[in-house]
Amino acid sequence: MQDRLLQDGILLIISGPSGSGKGTVCKNLQPTEGFALSISMTTRTQRPGEVHGIDYIFCDKDQFRAVRDADGLLEHAMYGNNYYGTPVSYVNDQMRNGHTVVLEINVVGALQVKEKYPEAILIFLMPPTFSDLRHRLELRGTEDEAEIDRRFRRAWDEVAELPKYDYLVINDSVENAVNEIKLIVASEKLKPHRSNEKISHFHDNIENGE
Amino acid sequence: MQDRLLQDGILLIISGPSGSGKGTVCKNLQPTEGFALSISMTTRTQRPGEVHGIDYIFCDKDQFRAVRDADGLLEHAMYGNNYYGTPVSYVNDQMRNGHTVVLEINVVGALQVKEKYPEAILIFLMPPTFSDLRHRLELRGTEDEAEIDRRFRRAWDEVAELPKYDYLVINDSVENAVNEIKLIVASEKLKPHRSNEKISHFHDNIENGE
Repeated sequence: MQDRLLQDGILLIISGPSGSGKGTVCKNLQPTEGFALSISMTTRTQRPGEVHGIDYIFCDKDQFRAVRDADGLLEHAMYGNNYYGTPVSYVNDQMRNGHTVVLEINVVGALQVKEKYPEAILIFLMPPTFSDLRHRLELRGTEDEAEIDRRFRRAWDEVAELPKYDYLVINDSVENAVNEIKLIVASEKLKPHRSNEKISHFHDNIENGE
Repeated sequence: MQDRLLQDGILLIISGPSGSGKGTVCKNLQPTEGFALSISMTTRTQRPGEVHGIDYIFCDKDQFRAVRDADGLLEHAMYGNNYYGTPVSYVNDQMRNGHTVVLEINVVGALQVKEKYPEAILIFLMPPTFSDLRHRLELRGTEDEAEIDRRFRRAWDEVAELPKYDYLVINDSVENAVNEIKLIVASEKLKPHRSNEKISHFHDNIENGE
C-alpha cells in the first residue's frame, strides 16, 4: 500500500549538514505549489506558541513506542531524552492527495529513509563552501563554540555521503535553492513510473473506436 | 576515457515510435542553449542539398566497417542495404566542449546505447495518444499504407519498453516537448556525479586558510 503511493506521489527529502539552511528552504516550498511539509512526532515538551498537529504531533513515550513498534514511522531517532519520528500515515495522506511531501531531515535519517523507500528523492543541500557553512553556524548563534566545532567536523563526513544522494543543490540563496528544487520535482514527474495517468491516455481514443 | 567524459557531460537520447516527432523536436534543441545534435555516419548515397559533416558523414562500406570494428560507433544498424551508425569521436568531442549531445534514435538503438552507457539519459517521446501517432504517420505521407500499419503496430511494442527509459515526454506541441527536455537536462545537471566542479569549490576557501 505504501509502496504504491510512493510510486505515484513524490517523497522529497531535503537533507544536508547542520547550518546548510534546510529549515529556511523547506519553509519556502509553498503548499500553493503542491508541497506539504511533513510533521514530526515527538515526546518533548510542547513550547509556548507551538501548535499540536502543525509544528509537531506531541505524544508521550508509550504512544510513540506503540506507533514505532507498529512500523508506523518512516524514521526515528532519540535526541537528549526525547523521541522524534516521522509518521507514515501523514506522509501517505498527503501523497494520496497528490502533494509532494517534504521531509527535512539530517543525513543519517535521510539515508535510512532512502533504504526503506528507494523511490524517495534525496536532495543534499549545501552552502557554496565549507567556510560559508561555518559562518552560518556561527551567525545563527544557537550553539556554543564546542557544538559548532562538532557540527562542522560532522559536515565533512556528511559530504562524503553525497554520492548516495540523487541531487546536490547549492544554497547560495534561498530563492535559487527553492527554484532548483522545484525544477527537480518537475523533472521527476516525467519519470515513466510516475506517468501512469499519461500512459493510460495512450489507449483511450483507440478503445473509443477511432 | 569515454566513461569519464560521460560522467561530466550529458548524452541525451531522444527516442520513440516512428511518427512521435523526434526529428522536429531535436531540430528545436538549439546550439545556443548548449545542445549539439549528433551526426550519423552512413553508406547511403548523398542526396542533393545534403552536406557532408552536417547532415551525415558519408563514407563507403569499407570505411564504415573499419570504424565499427575499431569500436568507434555508439550504435549501428543496417536499413535497406546501407549502414548507419553514430561515431563515438564526434559525441566525445562535443561533450568535451561541455555540450549536451543529442542523439535522435529508434527504440532498439536507444536501448543498445543505454546498455553500453548507463549514464546516457533516455527520453521517450510520444504523442498524447496512439490515435495521434497514427494521424501523424498518415499526415506526413512519406510511407504507404502497409508501411504505416507496420510502424503503427511496432509502436505498441515500443511503448512496452517505456519502463527502461528515464523520462517520458508527451509531444502535444513542439514547444512543450522542448521545454520539458530542457527542464530534464537542467535537473540532471544537479546529480552529484555531474557536480564535480561545485564539489571542488567546497574546500577552496578552507585551503586558502579561511
